[in-house]
Amino acid sequence: MSKLLAVGTVAFDAIETPFGKTDKILGGSGTFVGLAASQFGVETGVVSVVGGDFPASYLEMMNSKGINTDGIEVDEKGKTFFWSGKYHNDMNSRDTLVTELNVLETFAPVVPEHFKDAGIVMLGNLHPLTQASVLDQMKEIPKLIVLDTMNFWMDIALEDLHTVLKRVDVITINDEEARQLSGEYSLVNAAEKIHAIGPKYVVIKKGEHGALLFSGGKMFAAPALPLSEVFDPTGAGDTFAGGFCGYLAKTEDLSFENMKNAIIYGSNLASFCVEKFGTERMQVLTAAEVVHRLQAFKDLTQYDMNIA
Amino acid sequence: MSKLLAVGTVAFDAIETPFGKTDKILGGSGTFVGLAASQFGVETGVVSVVGGDFPASYLEMMNSKGINTDGIEVDEKGKTFFWSGKYHNDMNSRDTLVTELNVLETFAPVVPEHFKDAGIVMLGNLHPLTQASVLDQMKEIPKLIVLDTMNFWMDIALEDLHTVLKRVDVITINDEEARQLSGEYSLVNAAEKIHAIGPKYVVIKKGEHGALLFSGGKMFAAPALPLSEVFDPTGAGDTFAGGFCGYLAKTEDLSFENMKNAIIYGSNLASFCVEKFGTERMQVLTAAEVVHRLQAFKDLTQYDMNIA
Repeated sequence: MSKLLAVGTVAFDAIETPFGKTDKILGGSGTFVGLAASQFGVETGVVSVVGGDFPASYLEMMNSKGINTDGIEVDEKGKTFFWSGKYHNDMNSRDTLVTELNVLETFAPVVPEHFKDAGIVMLGNLHPLTQASVLDQMKEIPKLIVLDTMNFWMDIALEDLHTVLKRVDVITINDEEARQLSGEYSLVNAAEKIHAIGPKYVVIKKGEHGALLFSGGKMFAAPALPLSEVFDPTGAGDTFAGGFCGYLAKTEDLSFENMKNAIIYGSNLASFCVEKFGTERMQVLTAAEVVHRLQAFKDLTQYDMNIA
Repeated sequence: MSKLLAVGTVAFDAIETPFGKTDKILGGSGTFVGLAASQFGVETGVVSVVGGDFPASYLEMMNSKGINTDGIEVDEKGKTFFWSGKYHNDMNSRDTLVTELNVLETFAPVVPEHFKDAGIVMLGNLHPLTQASVLDQMKEIPKLIVLDTMNFWMDIALEDLHTVLKRVDVITINDEEARQLSGEYSLVNAAEKIHAIGPKYVVIKKGEHGALLFSGGKMFAAPALPLSEVFDPTGAGDTFAGGFCGYLAKTEDLSFENMKNAIIYGSNLASFCVEKFGTERMQVLTAAEVVHRLQAFKDLTQYDMNIA
């Protein structure tokens, strides 16, 4: 079992969906990654920053799940990063209503000593230079570095993004972003161009349409589990990434074949995440529920046809 | 092996994509369904109508593939149905430039005697009353009736569509149309509502995102094969349906498990269809190529994870 280090946001979210709206609730990529990884009993450390307004009870909840929060700096004088968004009826698109960076504006991640030898590092969606600064603090090169990013960084920090990508094994990105980063419409061609920038593995997240994994000419496609109700998609992508990393940290098998399983695990956990607002569902998710739904994924995707 | 009867259009298409444009070439749902089904050595009859301007060589090509064209009426005084469209850069959306119904305007399908006992009937995208008139001519109720339709018929002939759907086993429809027909956003809920109208099996076509099969609470998801080049998506949905029906006609196994295979076969053939303009690729497709790519589908979707 490898240690997992995840850098990302720990935040307040206020969310409106067709099913209801919330006040400020717990959110952030680091939070979702940590909660997903906690399903695997992997030693997970989250590196982030929060303000003096951040309830200690949230950190306690994370600790109770086995998430190490030593790397979450509390800036007593500042306010926690706040994001507010409203999902459209189709749940595939959303408007950002408010983004208050607050303490995130000057965030300089500090990796706790105990996680400087983590085997797997998940670089959540932050400025590429911030992501790189985490790698700089590692004692040795991790066995696997996974990076999540978004179009915003391609727009304002493309060169820095290219630089950090040279050090990265896996990029997770959505289909539009893969097209933007590569300038290729075909996702096959996009993945090849992105390989050439650095990452050996390209994971393309397609929301309700599932995810694709590309590496060296090999491809794997996992569907999302069709659900009768998607309550709140917030955090689904981070939960997917957390499940992916958590499974790989637990199994320590970085082959393409095992990455397929990691993708399925990520999709599986994401399918739970969207069932309630924010982290609500992930906080109470049991191992039995996870295993039960893995069988649903098998039924959904596996077939038995002889190829003559 | 069952006989397959396919009713649909046999038409001229003029297509513009980012890769080029064509003059009037052979198209039509009946044509694509027939060409796909011809891969299975199934006795396939196409019912349609063309005008006096339709080259005999096209019918000969279909005959050479084993497609029975006795049911394709030649209206010497009329002109063949013509459609012209232009695909946008993303290849997922298109504008219709011209629709000339011509002989299709008064089309009353006549099922040849020899196909009145076909075990499988594919009702291509036509007016629901036209689709029903084909079923009325059958000597006995076919083992499987598959219906394709589109939003246009939901807009102008919803009641007739509901009536014919009561007689149908499988509906093939895209995701937006499933949502329109059911009034449900979730495809799981949409499939349930559509089951209640009639079809026991709901196949949802999602283009580059693959296809979903729903029946009695069971689900199956097949991805589309990611391609480095999608040259022309025209006919992909009909090719998918033709592959689905052709495989079922050949195997005569109408279980949910075998329908999974039929979906994979349909997706596989559709992945070839889009590689060239119109029917070009399907006319030269060999069995060896089909089998080879089935293995690519296995690699793309199958994984081996023990669920503890």
